[in-house]
Amino acid sequence: MSVLVPPQPAAVYVSRRSRLSRALAGEPAIFFAGDLVPRNYAANTYPYRAHSHFLYFTGVHWPGAVLLGSGDGWEIFAAPPAPDDPLWIGPSATWDELQAATGVRKIRPLGELRTALDSLRGVATLPAVHPRTRARQASLLGRPWGAHDEAESGTVALAGKDAELAEAVISLRLQHDAPALELLRQSAEGARAGHLAGMAATRPGRRESDVRAAIEAEFAARGMTPAYGSIVTVHGEVLHNEHSHHPLRAGDLLLADCGADCHGWASDVTRTWPVSGAWSPTQRALYDLVLQANQDATAMVRPGVRYRDIHLRASLTLARGLVDLGIFRGDPEGLVERGAHALFFPHGVGHLLGLDVHDMEDLGDRAGYAPGRARSRQFGTCYLRLDRDLAPGMLVTIEPGLYLVPAILGDRALCGPFEADLDRERLAAYADVRGIRIEDDVLCTEAGPDVLTAAIPRDADAVAALVGAPRDAD
Amino acid sequence: MSVLVPPQPAAVYVSRRSRLSRALAGEPAIFFAGDLVPRNYAANTYPYRAHSHFLYFTGVHWPGAVLLGSGDGWEIFAAPPAPDDPLWIGPSATWDELQAATGVRKIRPLGELRTALDSLRGVATLPAVHPRTRARQASLLGRPWGAHDEAESGTVALAGKDAELAEAVISLRLQHDAPALELLRQSAEGARAGHLAGMAATRPGRRESDVRAAIEAEFAARGMTPAYGSIVTVHGEVLHNEHSHHPLRAGDLLLADCGADCHGWASDVTRTWPVSGAWSPTQRALYDLVLQANQDATAMVRPGVRYRDIHLRASLTLARGLVDLGIFRGDPEGLVERGAHALFFPHGVGHLLGLDVHDMEDLGDRAGYAPGRARSRQFGTCYLRLDRDLAPGMLVTIEPGLYLVPAILGDRALCGPFEADLDRERLAAYADVRGIRIEDDVLCTEAGPDVLTAAIPRDADAVAALVGAPRDAD
Repeated sequence: MSVLVPPQPAAVYVSRRSRLSRALAGEPAIFFAGDLVPRNYAANTYPYRAHSHFLYFTGVHWPGAVLLGSGDGWEIFAAPPAPDDPLWIGPSATWDELQAATGVRKIRPLGELRTALDSLRGVATLPAVHPRTRARQASLLGRPWGAHDEAESGTVALAGKDAELAEAVISLRLQHDAPALELLRQSAEGARAGHLAGMAATRPGRRESDVRAAIEAEFAARGMTPAYGSIVTVHGEVLHNEHSHHPLRAGDLLLADCGADCHGWASDVTRTWPVSGAWSPTQRALYDLVLQANQDATAMVRPGVRYRDIHLRASLTLARGLVDLGIFRGDPEGLVERGAHALFFPHGVGHLLGLDVHDMEDLGDRAGYAPGRARSRQFGTCYLRLDRDLAPGMLVTIEPGLYLVPAILGDRALCGPFEADLDRERLAAYADVRGIRIEDDVLCTEAGPDVLTAAIPRDADAVAALVGAPRDAD
Repeated sequence: MSVLVPPQPAAVYVSRRSRLSRALAGEPAIFFAGDLVPRNYAANTYPYRAHSHFLYFTGVHWPGAVLLGSGDGWEIFAAPPAPDDPLWIGPSATWDELQAATGVRKIRPLGELRTALDSLRGVATLPAVHPRTRARQASLLGRPWGAHDEAESGTVALAGKDAELAEAVISLRLQHDAPALELLRQSAEGARAGHLAGMAATRPGRRESDVRAAIEAEFAARGMTPAYGSIVTVHGEVLHNEHSHHPLRAGDLLLADCGADCHGWASDVTRTWPVSGAWSPTQRALYDLVLQANQDATAMVRPGVRYRDIHLRASLTLARGLVDLGIFRGDPEGLVERGAHALFFPHGVGHLLGLDVHDMEDLGDRAGYAPGRARSRQFGTCYLRLDRDLAPGMLVTIEPGLYLVPAILGDRALCGPFEADLDRERLAAYADVRGIRIEDDVLCTEAGPDVLTAAIPRDADAVAALVGAPRDAD
């Protein structure tokens, strides 16, 4: 793979490495970019993306590369270009160019890494993501992580210097610097273009995959990729629906949860719209309720606010609305306290967003949960991925939703405690809704919330007007 | 991930397993589907695709699943669904449905695999593709493959029963059955739609990525994915160009090498067209020459013909044309014998095509090279991936090209032996060509070549007329 210079000036990466060095008080650290991953044989690989920590401190997608250093002395170790690279992969940036563009002291052949490590009294590291890289990391550094640990996020055990490194990286990446925000805004702009194209491509008789294609084409045209598996479905009640083969029918709502990866930085946006361009009264009622929850939650994004309280605020808005509609009976505060809202809103209101769409989830809950805080055991809130006090520069998603999930509403254990609170007859009138979610990317600033995805319409009438609309070529 | 039933009737897979069983004379074999691969953390994975051997015999993309059996007694071992799967991934096919749709005797929990293996006196297997799966395979079966072997295709060492299994699988997959051809034709139809959309989306001022987006959107709309990293570039001289950020300028040729993955089956198509919709005389001359080579090579596809001879035939057409144009001097046969053509045509004329775009390349050259045949050492022909005698049902690509590669034409070691044969002054007149390739998917039948991609225009005038053309929505 040819390696391109990073998208931003060397000073960006120099500054990040130097802030890290200060936090580590001069202790050395090592980051692995990760390897190319074969799709069906060695030469047919998945699109390469460097691991996020490596990317944060270097800006380059460089398969197999390793960043090692401390203080101002950072070096990249990489495989030298193969003799026939110019034929097959064309002219790459030279090592001199890459050295200048990343601002590292030197770029050295990977073969010298062993000796460089031997000269140190130990080095802090974080678990590599790709299994092959992790195996190499284990043999180089003697770290005890098993080959399968990454499957259990939330349980990554780090000790000593590694734990200190994790805390230092998290504290840097939690509050985005200006260059990060520049790319995050570009990513949000890609998401805007995608969602508008998706709305325009929607009409009865087409398939989910037609809309997904229209959305992802806008990403691709900008040199971006999907930041995660796009969800484009009339079965919004399936939270991580992976298939897009269903036909679009006039009475359906289409839920699109699609974000772009822009030079490694993610957006994460959900909009829901009626396939026909017209809401039924029941669809409109629940949609407006989700929008209210989105707005109530977004308005709370400011420094010092505990994120779990935003989750509970969205839950309360939803519970109150469901009481107003007669689907729930009783006191909204009490319903939320007992977790009744989770029958219709069974996930968290959002998560960290940055290089990763669930930012730093490779470190389990270390990034999302402040020290001393742990996941709730209550159904629904147990899925909340973030419980920190917000600070300026933190970017979070705000993504309340309402879903009629047969697997929940037909589950006695889940519904039993709330059966008396639930008017199933009233609920039956809303059977033309399967799932609605409205998700924005919200930056915490001293002045309050800055919605990076504000340009993507969310008002019910505005959204409906865009469905199936003819579009000028941009 | 939810698991869907296979796209074709159970009888397709039953028949393939039973043909395999006969070839193995009742010896048991085991195939691994492979695992989900994390992109940047455990829950954000690359789009899953089962490994091709598993897919051939089951039709299902089932992460972590294992097919084990012999004779008529084949079973799939898989992880039981998680309790909260219905919430997150929605209703999957049930094990009963999957058992019926794949025709296996039984589907059993993965936990029972160890015991099932212990009851056998050994089992034949092929190296798994994904590193994590390979590690699991090694610990289950005690196979000595290292974790990094898959990086060196061409050198996969298999012994004893494993080698017999490889030969049996290769002999089945080399000659496609009717159900395979049905999906391969659908994949070729996806490629047709993509390339036509790409031609229509081309105009000066746009970027390569706009055209790539248009092509891949046609795949996505059909529920297909790119079968390999799409190459869409005005730098066709870079054979495996991975980047699509260049602007399209009026004098450029655009080379698009894009194929679809349809239920795991690949197409692989290249077309080259002028960005402006008009060929310069020099571009047209070289284009027509490549087309002639494509047609000469395609015409040779019939049972019993040695594929290397097709490669040499294409090389001869190109050499003859280059002599006619005055770029080479001398005798075309002699030039090809000495390898002079490879200065402009430095790759093989094609390869096997099937589930994999380089079919069965996970087994190195075992599938591509008949026993007793090995790669040439001559520059150019050393890159030929196929040297078998063709047989009915074999699907190959025919993809001659002409490239002006600075890394070759400026290399003294490569050009030295041919400097006297080369008229560099004449060559300089063709500087507005960087790379041209015309690639089709050609099925070998008793009646001769059946070009699956025949519906994608390749005549110079026809192609030019499609560039930037307005298109009806399909």
